[in-house]
Amino acid sequence: MTHHDLLRELQLKNNSKIVLLVADGLGGLPLTPGGQTELETARTPNLDALATRGVLGLSTPVLPGITPGSGPGHLGLFGYDPLEFRIGRGVLEALGIDFDLGPNDVAIRGNFCSLDAEGKISDRRAGRIASDIGKKLCAKLDKITIPGVEVFVRPVKEYRLVIVFRAAGLGGAVADTDPQKTGVLPLDPVAKDPGSQRTAEIARQFLARAREVLKDDFPANFFTMRGIDKRPAIPTFSEVYGLKAGAVAVYPMYRGLARLVSMDVLDAGQTLEDQCARLEQSWNDYDFFFMHYKYTDSTGEDGNFPAKVERIEQLDAVLPRIQALKPDVLVVTGDHSTPSKMKSHSWHPVPTLLAAETCRPDACTRFGEQECLRGGLGQFPAKYLMTLAMAHAGRLEKYGA
Amino acid sequence: MTHHDLLRELQLKNNSKIVLLVADGLGGLPLTPGGQTELETARTPNLDALATRGVLGLSTPVLPGITPGSGPGHLGLFGYDPLEFRIGRGVLEALGIDFDLGPNDVAIRGNFCSLDAEGKISDRRAGRIASDIGKKLCAKLDKITIPGVEVFVRPVKEYRLVIVFRAAGLGGAVADTDPQKTGVLPLDPVAKDPGSQRTAEIARQFLARAREVLKDDFPANFFTMRGIDKRPAIPTFSEVYGLKAGAVAVYPMYRGLARLVSMDVLDAGQTLEDQCARLEQSWNDYDFFFMHYKYTDSTGEDGNFPAKVERIEQLDAVLPRIQALKPDVLVVTGDHSTPSKMKSHSWHPVPTLLAAETCRPDACTRFGEQECLRGGLGQFPAKYLMTLAMAHAGRLEKYGA
Repeated sequence: MTHHDLLRELQLKNNSKIVLLVADGLGGLPLTPGGQTELETARTPNLDALATRGVLGLSTPVLPGITPGSGPGHLGLFGYDPLEFRIGRGVLEALGIDFDLGPNDVAIRGNFCSLDAEGKISDRRAGRIASDIGKKLCAKLDKITIPGVEVFVRPVKEYRLVIVFRAAGLGGAVADTDPQKTGVLPLDPVAKDPGSQRTAEIARQFLARAREVLKDDFPANFFTMRGIDKRPAIPTFSEVYGLKAGAVAVYPMYRGLARLVSMDVLDAGQTLEDQCARLEQSWNDYDFFFMHYKYTDSTGEDGNFPAKVERIEQLDAVLPRIQALKPDVLVVTGDHSTPSKMKSHSWHPVPTLLAAETCRPDACTRFGEQECLRGGLGQFPAKYLMTLAMAHAGRLEKYGA
Repeated sequence: MTHHDLLRELQLKNNSKIVLLVADGLGGLPLTPGGQTELETARTPNLDALATRGVLGLSTPVLPGITPGSGPGHLGLFGYDPLEFRIGRGVLEALGIDFDLGPNDVAIRGNFCSLDAEGKISDRRAGRIASDIGKKLCAKLDKITIPGVEVFVRPVKEYRLVIVFRAAGLGGAVADTDPQKTGVLPLDPVAKDPGSQRTAEIARQFLARAREVLKDDFPANFFTMRGIDKRPAIPTFSEVYGLKAGAVAVYPMYRGLARLVSMDVLDAGQTLEDQCARLEQSWNDYDFFFMHYKYTDSTGEDGNFPAKVERIEQLDAVLPRIQALKPDVLVVTGDHSTPSKMKSHSWHPVPTLLAAETCRPDACTRFGEQECLRGGLGQFPAKYLMTLAMAHAGRLEKYGA
């Protein structure tokens, strides 16, 4: 019996509101021995007050030592086991450009590449062509028609594109065509199971047509296909939790991840203030809100410690506006750590703050990594965070008599 | 390989004694922000001294955020995964009235209800009839005979009753007959698997006879059936741990739960003093004692904070009498939390104290929720508590060479 089975069985309806505020890549590291992390360095009076009355802990997104991408990181926060539900690269890329993937869609991440006179790959990224060139080439490719299937080709950025085949019954198990090296021919798309034969055949036809269409577009005179996959069959948020959920996320990737678990994706504007306004306007329409803040991650990826500190302080500043709505449960956390020192996602456990009337107090008075270590939530798998939020919202029945 | 498989393999015999003292619903919450829990408020010099030389921690009965009933709560403490071993409502109800359920028994929780002239349910609880009326009606129903099966009908309280069908080969998978609403006919008992067809047929015959027997007993002129089930196939305590176990519990439900894992149920009298006397008298007869104290839960359920504090202090007062027996391992814990503030069971982790010669000391000097947060046992699934007790009793071999 999985924890989802249990939640399906125990979920209750009431009028409570839950807000999950995700500061992407929130966790960090000190730059020097004995120093403080970005979160510990930031002046966060509102988060600290919330930490004092709420309960802290550290979540492990996947497993100890495993660094998650945005997909597994968010699935974990949404209460889905990231090892059970895997999202293919093509699917994530499609979600990332706000493409509304349906159940009949196979999504493919494409890389424009350069072919030499013999048809061998001479550059796997087509000289990193500019985004506007990629866009024009995608528009050409989007005109290709294949009988019995809808084809969508969309630019992502520079040499990256997304291809979607839409038809009933297409399997998603087709091997990459990227040979991962130069000086060799691109690979043929090969089905990895019988149900994906037709998908492979469609890909073959599409690649043949595309080779014609792009033949004069050197350095981007072809492309390779990677991460071919369908969106996974994921139980919906409303089915598992009985929650009507709205996502207030600015960036397409996170809107897409929310859509994957069937949240309503709301117009979030561009800024934290826009997001708060949306939250206020939609407050009565949903039981649960996922609010996503990107800049703690992007500043971490940039290795810009002071900028990440500043972004955390900006988040702290809008907290009162969220609290004014009086959510029954307010969770502030990240989907993973992104220490500026490492300029990348990391495996370090993620600071987590949960505030509700039913919190058992711990001794914590500041929101920070060291303080979270002595928090009442302890260290816990991120996939149980939603269960805790549901419990504090009074939305779970007792298990067994 | 489950942890039970491991324990079966590694268990050793010696002369050690383990006492598991369960203060039901022990964990709590402060009434006001910054306040203390019931356990933290109570003056507990004996528990504190034990905490100082022992090791503390917090156990999670089922999963983070999941509130357990008494059944799953105790199964966890006894070392059984409460998600693997589920106890049906009928079984728990039968255990709760000290009915000795055997392997050929199907137990059913009944609710007396009122039927109108058309046979539709007009009151699902028969106007909450008094217990003595329920008792008389059960005595009438108990006389019904069905060929090839023994039938037992026992009153519980007010409109609640237990029905047991005893015959070899009866399956326990039969759907409830309670439609969960009024103005409709009771449902027929329907088998959920082929092996339960006969049980459903017996239930149908019994209900037909009962309808006759009760026809003049409005408002309790019928009853519905719920939680139809057999006792689960549970490995015995002696098989898993190699322990000869005795239960010293006053309340039937907990005696029943102990019986479920094949502990000997001892005469426990009515008071803590009676229980201590039983412990002393039976000390040489058992390796393991489960001693159950109900009042920390019932005062919590009543929302009576000071009464729960007092009950904890009463438990503390008898501790020296238990310690005088010099158990090799003494565990004091609860099966779940029951904060007076919530007047109900809750999901909050459960304070746990383990004292033995082999404890690695932590810095804890008081038995209380916050102190447990920095205890050496950390936060751990309750199902591993017995493994820890066995280890400290020197009853587990090394795993692997």
